[in-house]
Amino acid sequence: MFTNRRDVQIQWGDCDPADIVYYPRYFAMFDDSTSALFVAAGCSKRDLIKIHGLVGIPMVDTRAKFYIPSTYGDVISIESRIERFGRSSFEVLHKAFKGEQLALEGFETRVLVGRDPAEPGRLKSVPVPEEVKARFMRG
Amino acid sequence: MFTNRRDVQIQWGDCDPADIVYYPRYFAMFDDSTSALFVAAGCSKRDLIKIHGLVGIPMVDTRAKFYIPSTYGDVISIESRIERFGRSSFEVLHKAFKGEQLALEGFETRVLVGRDPAEPGRLKSVPVPEEVKARFMRG
Amino acid sequence: MFTNRRDVQIQWGDCDPADIVYYPRYFAMFDDSTSALFVAAGCSKRDLIKIHGLVGIPMVDTRAKFYIPSTYGDVISIESRIERFGRSSFEVLHKAFKGEQLALEGFETRVLVGRDPAEPGRLKSVPVPEEVKARFMRG
Amino acid sequence: MFTNRRDVQIQWGDCDPADIVYYPRYFAMFDDSTSALFVAAGCSKRDLIKIHGLVGIPMVDTRAKFYIPSTYGDVISIESRIERFGRSSFEVLHKAFKGEQLALEGFETRVLVGRDPAEPGRLKSVPVPEEVKARFMRG
Repeated sequence: MFTNRRDVQIQWGDCDPADIVYYPRYFAMFDDSTSALFVAAGCSKRDLIKIHGLVGIPMVDTRAKFYIPSTYGDVISIESRIERFGRSSFEVLHKAFKGEQLALEGFETRVLVGRDPAEPGRLKSVPVPEEVKARFMRG
Repeated sequence: MFTNRRDVQIQWGDCDPADIVYYPRYFAMFDDSTSALFVAAGCSKRDLIKIHGLVGIPMVDTRAKFYIPSTYGDVISIESRIERFGRSSFEVLHKAFKGEQLALEGFETRVLVGRDPAEPGRLKSVPVPEEVKARFMRG
Repeated sequence: MFTNRRDVQIQWGDCDPADIVYYPRYFAMFDDSTSALFVAAGCSKRDLIKIHGLVGIPMVDTRAKFYIPSTYGDVISIESRIERFGRSSFEVLHKAFKGEQLALEGFETRVLVGRDPAEPGRLKSVPVPEEVKARFMRG
Repeated sequence: MFTNRRDVQIQWGDCDPADIVYYPRYFAMFDDSTSALFVAAGCSKRDLIKIHGLVGIPMVDTRAKFYIPSTYGDVISIESRIERFGRSSFEVLHKAFKGEQLALEGFETRVLVGRDPAEPGRLKSVPVPEEVKARFMRG
């Protein structure tokens, strides 16, 4: 599967009184990394939302495992790829490295969601477009 | 003017490595306090947005002055009131107390914004409804 | 096990352009809920850190499953309890309800961390004090 | 004065239900920009804190004025410079551009803070080191 890598520098405001990253911030970094993965694959989340009439790509299940803490000024390198496509969902794996060492991992299951044509106030899942899948089936 | 007071407990994730509140978090607390002020006045931001067809009430100018730091576990009491109404805008003053002492102050100028009927992709300012003003002209 | 329940009102800034809670915010709410659980059990995270000479209680593994979205103004009720104590770690389960319905669940494995006496720049795990365990073995 | 410029891409989680940046996020971006300004001047906030024994560089007064909203995927270019040094304080001006247009401005007054040698639990202001000032008096 197509993989994207981006560097993230830990900011002062990402860290808590223990002088390490406040872990909910890692989920924001992973969310940004999934966005960046889609852009790198030539199909931004923005396009995906606009072109395919989606409301968003909400998370249904996410997990992170933390091995090495990071602090203000550190740079982590986040490697992201889609592990599996379901009908309306997909799984993303993020591996964040500090130098050569695996510092943390993130796991996401997301679903494509649009408005229900029968009831516009309601959200419903939308199948992953084949052309979207094709963009990740390489590399 | 009508005044609302709410207590906010400082959370671990609000604090930075200097063990004091990371100041952008105070702006989120002030934003929540403005929301709470509107609810307390009997006219929630949510209603204001839905009933009056607004997109939101964005900030145009905001300032904060910090006198006493706070840390994890502290409780601050935020006293909020509208200082002045303009045609489409209003000014909010927040005073946050730690016990009897003034810990910080926040100043906001916000504007009511809706979609331009002539061009729905554009935002434009909307006059403050008189019945909204009336709710704050007391207290 | 001892269980604590707290209500959290979803704020404007908790929500994203899809008009639902931006999911990293839920991890911050869960973190606050774990803090509140310790306070309710009569042993605040603050005391735990100060009395037992800890640096913090970092997360080593956390997961959340999302069933029902929430938006600005909604109130969710988060029920939290420790599921299991290990030597230096413990597991927390959070169940967040919207009315009667389970809206999301959070799972945490945390570890007690202090400074290594032999090398103060290093962090090391610290056994969970028996008196801390005792406070949660009821309810 | 020495000026630093950095690009910031607006992320999904920076935006609120009005589909524009949630304004407290801009203060975090400005805080990161002040950090980047110090790094670019060859004197990181990290070094400043470690070498000069500071606890941090807290904000005492900050303001922002918002002219043009930004949304998910937009890139803003933040130009930052120190406007003035006081004895223990300094003022930072941030100008954020969207293309050629000024989108928002940020103003900061910060103070250097260390532990009071006479009472280590207390914080006190620390004079700005001359070699730090010199690094910004150019460009």
